[in-house]
Amino acid sequence: MLDNLDKFTHLKRGTAGAINIDPLQRGGILTPEAREAIMEWADGYSVCDFCTGSLEGIQNPPIKDFVHEALPEFLEVDQVRITHGAREGMFAAMHSLCKRGSTVVADGNAHYTTLLAAELAGLKVELVSASEKPDYRVDPNGYEEAICRVRGRGEEVDMAVLTYPDGNYGNLVDARAVSEICHREEIPMMLNGAYSVGRMDISAERLGADVIVGSGHKSMASSGPIGVLGASEEHGSRIFRRSKLVPNKELEMLGCTLRGAGVLTMMASFPAVVERTKHWDEEVEKARWFAKEMEELGMTLVGDRPHGHDLMFFKSDVLYEISQTAKKGRYFLYRELKKRKIFGIKPGLTRQFKLSTYLLSREELETVLEAFEEIVALHPKA
Amino acid sequence: MLDNLDKFTHLKRGTAGAINIDPLQRGGILTPEAREAIMEWADGYSVCDFCTGSLEGIQNPPIKDFVHEALPEFLEVDQVRITHGAREGMFAAMHSLCKRGSTVVADGNAHYTTLLAAELAGLKVELVSASEKPDYRVDPNGYEEAICRVRGRGEEVDMAVLTYPDGNYGNLVDARAVSEICHREEIPMMLNGAYSVGRMDISAERLGADVIVGSGHKSMASSGPIGVLGASEEHGSRIFRRSKLVPNKELEMLGCTLRGAGVLTMMASFPAVVERTKHWDEEVEKARWFAKEMEELGMTLVGDRPHGHDLMFFKSDVLYEISQTAKKGRYFLYRELKKRKIFGIKPGLTRQFKLSTYLLSREELETVLEAFEEIVALHPKA
Repeated sequence: MLDNLDKFTHLKRGTAGAINIDPLQRGGILTPEAREAIMEWADGYSVCDFCTGSLEGIQNPPIKDFVHEALPEFLEVDQVRITHGAREGMFAAMHSLCKRGSTVVADGNAHYTTLLAAELAGLKVELVSASEKPDYRVDPNGYEEAICRVRGRGEEVDMAVLTYPDGNYGNLVDARAVSEICHREEIPMMLNGAYSVGRMDISAERLGADVIVGSGHKSMASSGPIGVLGASEEHGSRIFRRSKLVPNKELEMLGCTLRGAGVLTMMASFPAVVERTKHWDEEVEKARWFAKEMEELGMTLVGDRPHGHDLMFFKSDVLYEISQTAKKGRYFLYRELKKRKIFGIKPGLTRQFKLSTYLLSREELETVLEAFEEIVALHPKA
Repeated sequence: MLDNLDKFTHLKRGTAGAINIDPLQRGGILTPEAREAIMEWADGYSVCDFCTGSLEGIQNPPIKDFVHEALPEFLEVDQVRITHGAREGMFAAMHSLCKRGSTVVADGNAHYTTLLAAELAGLKVELVSASEKPDYRVDPNGYEEAICRVRGRGEEVDMAVLTYPDGNYGNLVDARAVSEICHREEIPMMLNGAYSVGRMDISAERLGADVIVGSGHKSMASSGPIGVLGASEEHGSRIFRRSKLVPNKELEMLGCTLRGAGVLTMMASFPAVVERTKHWDEEVEKARWFAKEMEELGMTLVGDRPHGHDLMFFKSDVLYEISQTAKKGRYFLYRELKKRKIFGIKPGLTRQFKLSTYLLSREELETVLEAFEEIVALHPKA
């Protein structure tokens, strides 16, 4: 009984020295400062040595300053809390701001966790359809239509969610236009910034977001799971309300959330994260250059054109055709890339896949492009 | 704007080389294997490189084997999932198993998060009172009475929770007796094992627990926040039900929970954790010896006698009297201990405090005892 447990120790990630182009992974790579922090704070409940009752009240380490001053300034929002991730932040906001049985309107490209958060909070979801290929765009006016559809059925809409950008195509919808519609219709707009907060210069105020969630592990160089949840004064007072049974604790957070090293990695990376958002234009430019090169190899970028984000979705008939006769079939692409120490395209995908160029150097991206070029050249098409 | 961010980097915990007797901290200290794991897996979403759709399905690293084989065997329970912590596990179980508006019966020594989890799930809480000082014991028969009280009001009881041991006195209630009462009354019993799972040999089956939660950062040598949630087949099928909107995802977990390094620390520590539970008797013996020595210095152990856990609560009139005239007043004890590199008793406490002897050597505990002896001897009483 309980033998052979050694298999759970000394595990290697197996991607050391490789180029990882998985969009999930690019923005979560720790800074040297965060690596230092995690070694110092790795033990269990380490941040709670000097707790005075709440995570966000801890002054040593200065979590209080980080959460109550730095993050609100960074996001241009009134109140912020640390969460277990963007999805948990969305749930907290929906659970506290929406009446059970009402409806949340969300973009058709929304991350699946938007649907889960709504369902767990007892809400229905009405989607604003994205357009067909090749751009899969969500029209802000679709929010107005969706709200009317729901109300036309005699049902209530209590919130709108916009995924900014979405995690499939990296499309950026005009958030300001969406929030104006939401406010005209008197519902709060929540921005899911899992792929933008920590990459781009994001201001909840400027975009008109009443609630905003971000992901530490996706885009803030933090050890996951961790996220941020920001809200306007009005909505924050409801989301972050105190418990009736335990009056000094915030109910929706179950008292405290990130009682461990993750928050210290987010703090340690924060100066670098603030800095990198100032260089977002360079990232966009690099992504566009990469996409152009991929298209010259026969792949096609779908989604926004010109593209405005490092997360890109490619269709690739050429690789699909190769997979029809290649040894290992549809796994050939994964294996060929792995051979060249390139990871991040899911095993089995050839016809379409997403990737990210975020924080990769031009040299590294040249290596990726050369790999694709070689793979195409080496394999006969079906 | 956003200046002076360097204060968030290069932070030291400030307790290096010290003896930390905070019960929160003792069981969460990482093993060398977990320290190795966290360096390897610290980046953002690191465990998701080879994801096939769910955290608990990941085979590389072998999270699947850990969650679906090792942990169920360890806890002697049908199904297990990784959670963000014990509190989040309690919420998931209450939210899925209890009807909104119904009541959860819990021990009077329950952790505050039990109340928060119930409140967040829309439930009321009926407490089984603990006895008065000095033992603060919860009588299993109190569960029967509490269930009857609630039903006598025409209300429904949907679950009972037992904190095993509680986090204040380290008292261990006869869990088997509680579960037998619950089953006779046809309600599930959830065991909050935040201070036992990973320290003691805990079997959900033997104790009759239908649901069990544990805490990685409190008692399983893991980098927090992380926990485990186990359930019988019957209750697990409801807690871990799939989403209707996203059918391949578990709703209550919002798809995936610990998408980061924490789960790898729990896995890496697991062999050592399994081993240490076999030496629990030695920990209890050491705690009793320590308590006896403290009593000889004028402190009084409250709670179970003989004591059955490393978490102990002491009353100390002698230190309180000293605080009346000491320089720094009630902060003198904290400062005197800090001077001797002993941490873990909250600043300002003198009259009563809790501490833990877990995994401290006799030599280290001698150092703690000598510190208390010196502090008492050096200070005149009021």
